[in-house]
Amino acid sequence: MSQTLSEKILSHAAGHEVRAGDFVVIRPDVVMSHDSLTPSILKIFHEQLGASRVADPQQLVFTMDHVVPAATVSIANDQNRVRRFAAEQGIRLFEVGRGICHQVLVEERIATPGKVIIGSDSHSTAYGAVGAFGCGMGSTDIALAWATGQTWLRVPETLRVILRGRFRPWVEAKDLALRLCREVGLDGANYMAVEYHGAPWMSLPERQTLASMAIEIGAKAGIFPPDPSLGEEFPIPEWLTVDESAAYARTLHINLDELQPQVALPHTVENVVDLSEISNQRVSVVFLGTCTNGRYEDLATAARILRGRRVAPGVRFIVTPASQQALARAAADGSLQTLIEAGAVLTTPGCGPCMGRHHGVLGEDDVCLSTGNRNFRGRMGSPEARIFLASPAVAAASAATGYITDPATLS
Amino acid sequence: MSQTLSEKILSHAAGHEVRAGDFVVIRPDVVMSHDSLTPSILKIFHEQLGASRVADPQQLVFTMDHVVPAATVSIANDQNRVRRFAAEQGIRLFEVGRGICHQVLVEERIATPGKVIIGSDSHSTAYGAVGAFGCGMGSTDIALAWATGQTWLRVPETLRVILRGRFRPWVEAKDLALRLCREVGLDGANYMAVEYHGAPWMSLPERQTLASMAIEIGAKAGIFPPDPSLGEEFPIPEWLTVDESAAYARTLHINLDELQPQVALPHTVENVVDLSEISNQRVSVVFLGTCTNGRYEDLATAARILRGRRVAPGVRFIVTPASQQALARAAADGSLQTLIEAGAVLTTPGCGPCMGRHHGVLGEDDVCLSTGNRNFRGRMGSPEARIFLASPAVAAASAATGYITDPATLS
Repeated sequence: MSQTLSEKILSHAAGHEVRAGDFVVIRPDVVMSHDSLTPSILKIFHEQLGASRVADPQQLVFTMDHVVPAATVSIANDQNRVRRFAAEQGIRLFEVGRGICHQVLVEERIATPGKVIIGSDSHSTAYGAVGAFGCGMGSTDIALAWATGQTWLRVPETLRVILRGRFRPWVEAKDLALRLCREVGLDGANYMAVEYHGAPWMSLPERQTLASMAIEIGAKAGIFPPDPSLGEEFPIPEWLTVDESAAYARTLHINLDELQPQVALPHTVENVVDLSEISNQRVSVVFLGTCTNGRYEDLATAARILRGRRVAPGVRFIVTPASQQALARAAADGSLQTLIEAGAVLTTPGCGPCMGRHHGVLGEDDVCLSTGNRNFRGRMGSPEARIFLASPAVAAASAATGYITDPATLS
Repeated sequence: MSQTLSEKILSHAAGHEVRAGDFVVIRPDVVMSHDSLTPSILKIFHEQLGASRVADPQQLVFTMDHVVPAATVSIANDQNRVRRFAAEQGIRLFEVGRGICHQVLVEERIATPGKVIIGSDSHSTAYGAVGAFGCGMGSTDIALAWATGQTWLRVPETLRVILRGRFRPWVEAKDLALRLCREVGLDGANYMAVEYHGAPWMSLPERQTLASMAIEIGAKAGIFPPDPSLGEEFPIPEWLTVDESAAYARTLHINLDELQPQVALPHTVENVVDLSEISNQRVSVVFLGTCTNGRYEDLATAARILRGRRVAPGVRFIVTPASQQALARAAADGSLQTLIEAGAVLTTPGCGPCMGRHHGVLGEDDVCLSTGNRNFRGRMGSPEARIFLASPAVAAASAATGYITDPATLS
């Protein structure tokens, strides 16, 4: 029987053949949670479930990425509580400064093709970049998975995106992700899986950008067919192949040759226009980072644009590497030095100011161009602040000029 | 007439010869304030003094270093208010990420020999490293200086510290600064100036470490006789020479040959012992940074110790460069890469977690070894946390082992 990638992965996890619409109880390969929610999951686990030991410590991964290093005494105490629990139960914990959960699990090869990964973070769709089924869940669901080792899912229908062509110069995976939000809308793929076909040439970081933003159109998962270009460290199970004749609920065609730089305007991620439609939009803050666009490649792109340039007066250019490895690679090849010389404000690897809890919270007058994934009112601080979303290339060009700028127009 | 360095500098500023005990009204060369207090100084300036324009915008310098980038909406709004005021009045402002006030004013050659520099920060004694008279003042005094261009001072008596010998391997300026706290006590030099004699071989960063901590023994200023080793960018006025026959209120002799690594125990800076008296003291956090010890040289020292080593499990090693230049130099020579590979958690250049407002606030169970200047209860977060102070070399060795360690004992 022909199956979608989600049907294949969830059939394998369930131990029997399933189709879209079926409910399955499975044992996820990985149950991830981060410092922002692990303390409340811990409370549910102990107080509501009355549990004391997790079913399988090997299944769990804790990360520290949202407010790191701790910004308040209460957060510091919460993080110490998580450290003690991890040590008691033998749970793997990636410490403060190691990086954003979704990036770290890929770097550590914990996310690999065919796995089911549930996470306390909505952008857990990002694991689809390596051909895993990744999805976010609420704190109670995660606590139940700790206690039982299991979770349940409805097998999603699939939206197939068929790509052709190639990105033009200075057009990036982020522009495609924003274009999908524009075409599909915030709830256009509610509880569906997105599969991205026709672009096996896309690099892993590009796939991560796209898969992380699958949630922004309401998707349960966003999956790239895994291929050998991922490397030997991402072994592909023989059953995880694409069936062209699988039952796709919807198919969308995108021609990358025609894609221009995209920008999401305040205050929703679907409020997307071609950058060319925007003129003279000043910014006070430019933020390069997040699980969507804080990788080494994104820093290197920004450095290429900012080499020999300075951040414009009146602009704060905040750079938050997605991981310690991203920071180390940028330091090793000089990209970091270029960014620092240009006047970038480097912060600790992690989520940075993405969710407005530290590292550059926005004030009421701020106008921010962010490479992140969400621009909802108040997301990064004051509800009066305005957030635009764009690619790392547009972010770097805009940092140099002080207004939203197409890098292709820089002399 | 023979004069101390303070008497010479304040005589020059007053335009007539003054002696310890005199009161002078002077026009300070520089009036510095930072993001932590500029908003409240602004409020006093407008609301209590009814002022609208500063007397001399050239005299003022604003820095952004205490909570940068902003950690809350309220801080972000305050910082934006300061930016608007600086732009309106034509005041020089060093932005988020540029570094700690005291380091930036030296790097920018705003602090030079013979100047009088008042600052909204208690560690403004640090400008004595270049032979300036630097002192901290309260917000009302700074607001008055904005409004009138002037301030008043009582000319301090002087404690002369005569150094001989040289630091032994892995003994640093910080050990001497702590030793002075041990010998003189927290209020042993109240409202005095400290002059450091006998060590013209000391580097500028070493002098900065010592001068910044003059305030910890209550001193109004801590001054090194300036000499040509500072370089041409620090021109020495011809009148700024040492008179051996000046009237010193007290003279203290220290033999550096006998100095061992020093550690301040919780919860006061004068509670100092030889490191060799401490055994098996575990730490959960090591902090390398601050105006006292966050310079390039401190990062390089730590890198020398951590090369080929890893931060011990259970330890967070937070590294906050004192300035963007310190970060850039550490990146250029590979020290930064060594620290990252060892597992250091890099934060934005600035004050970092020194005053417990972000970037690694301590929880109630935390035990921190800090290269900073204060270990008062609650200084870095929870009042239950314990803070030890030591040198960058001891900090790096302790990060590697997980307990307070003399670097000389590492194999």
